Amino acid sequence: MIDKTQYIFGLRPVIEAIESGKEIDKLYVKKDLSGDLSKELLEVARAHGVLVQRVPVQRIDRITRKNHQGVLAVLSAVTYYHLDSLVPQLYEDGVNPFVVVLDGVTDVRNFGAIARTCECAGVSAIVIPERNSVSVNADAVKTSAGALNYLPVCRERNLVNAVKFLHDSGFKIVGTSDKNSHNYTHCDYTGPVALVMGSEDEGISPEIMKLCDTRAVIPEFGEINSLNVSVASGIMIYEVVRQRLNDNQGVI
Amino acid sequence: MIDKTQYIFGLRPVIEAIESGKEIDKLYVKKDLSGDLSKELLEVARAHGVLVQRVPVQRIDRITRKNHQGVLAVLSAVTYYHLDSLVPQLYEDGVNPFVVVLDGVTDVRNFGAIARTCECAGVSAIVIPERNSVSVNADAVKTSAGALNYLPVCRERNLVNAVKFLHDSGFKIVGTSDKNSHNYTHCDYTGPVALVMGSEDEGISPEIMKLCDTRAVIPEFGEINSLNVSVASGIMIYEVVRQRLNDNQGVI
Repeated sequence: MIDKTQYIFGLRPVIEAIESGKEIDKLYVKKDLSGDLSKELLEVARAHGVLVQRVPVQRIDRITRKNHQGVLAVLSAVTYYHLDSLVPQLYEDGVNPFVVVLDGVTDVRNFGAIARTCECAGVSAIVIPERNSVSVNADAVKTSAGALNYLPVCRERNLVNAVKFLHDSGFKIVGTSDKNSHNYTHCDYTGPVALVMGSEDEGISPEIMKLCDTRAVIPEFGEINSLNVSVASGIMIYEVVRQRLNDNQGVI
Repeated sequence: MIDKTQYIFGLRPVIEAIESGKEIDKLYVKKDLSGDLSKELLEVARAHGVLVQRVPVQRIDRITRKNHQGVLAVLSAVTYYHLDSLVPQLYEDGVNPFVVVLDGVTDVRNFGAIARTCECAGVSAIVIPERNSVSVNADAVKTSAGALNYLPVCRERNLVNAVKFLHDSGFKIVGTSDKNSHNYTHCDYTGPVALVMGSEDEGISPEIMKLCDTRAVIPEFGEINSLNVSVASGIMIYEVVRQRLNDNQGVI
């Protein structure tokens, strides 16, 4: 599943990769790893803001049986953007920004389909958390039909803070929910919008739902009441596009 | 991939299955099969409207190595409806009908996701052709999240005739296209609608495109210009729902 070109293993190679500025998607370190070089790795990771995930050695063994020394880094297939520099840039470029925040979407096919829709709809950026999210690896790029080569992805350490930042930057935070919600077509999306989509199982996490200015629901009339998350995202995203076009706005 | 409960093989068992009224999704008969019982099978299949697909014996061998005698029937996981009885029933029930016609959608995950959206949106029925379409098997039911247990599926021998029948029954035939098209939100869907979605590769076939009363396009603003077909279907289907709700219609 994981392409060889996508990972680096061994203490020294991983330290060098981080120091050279390579984009690390996941850094797995076996639980009981110790020693001087191990300490150096952890310091370098912290200095570069790379999240270390302590895992049983079997987790790494499943990816490679070579001499990984208990350390394996999965490289990202894209270069991440940072919200705090991207948002001012969007405003400076005269864009009416529209970002899509994915809270807990872990299925790579759903993520790819959502990225594809975002790119087609002229969404400014997609925002994902570091933990509890998909790996933006070569598979993700493939299922996105190449959209991830064009669409900025912001990967944020703390999604709650990221949403607060968007709110403070003038975005209307829109959460999709089935409780206490308005029909999604009756909400206004003509200003800066951050659309939050939750995972299929859990929906949007309560901390983030609290930050939403608007709770929107897609009406359902059947027995199963569960749209696929990539389909629901498409419906929400294109409602934003519809309103902006009707408002005679350029969409991108 | 194919569950054991989903198929029947051997001349006599398949003849009995067809005569007992079992819903046959595919009937594979090896190319050079001959003999009296073989003739009987072909007659029974014709009498019951089951399409026979002549295939190399290897095609059947890939599914089972048991003594299939060159005959294998894949059972359908759903009971098909017939458009010519369903449409009058819908009108009689006072429904403003909305059917989704899939022209060449062969990917089972896309088909399942579309069925799921249709069920949630209160679509009256989904229409597929016998050839050049997915098998509505247990996998399809699973990827539809159970929607196929509730949503009527019409499987039509000739999709062009089926679309003509819908047109003659008062449906507006809406095709999604990128040429000579109107923005999909500017078309009217408040009357009886048959929405035709084409395959991702080929789009809608020319014979069916000719029958469309309205050609609608979902605007795209990016570099890749290719929405996933299940996402595009969701966007189109929920535009119909939006207009009908705004028109104060009951959707189902």
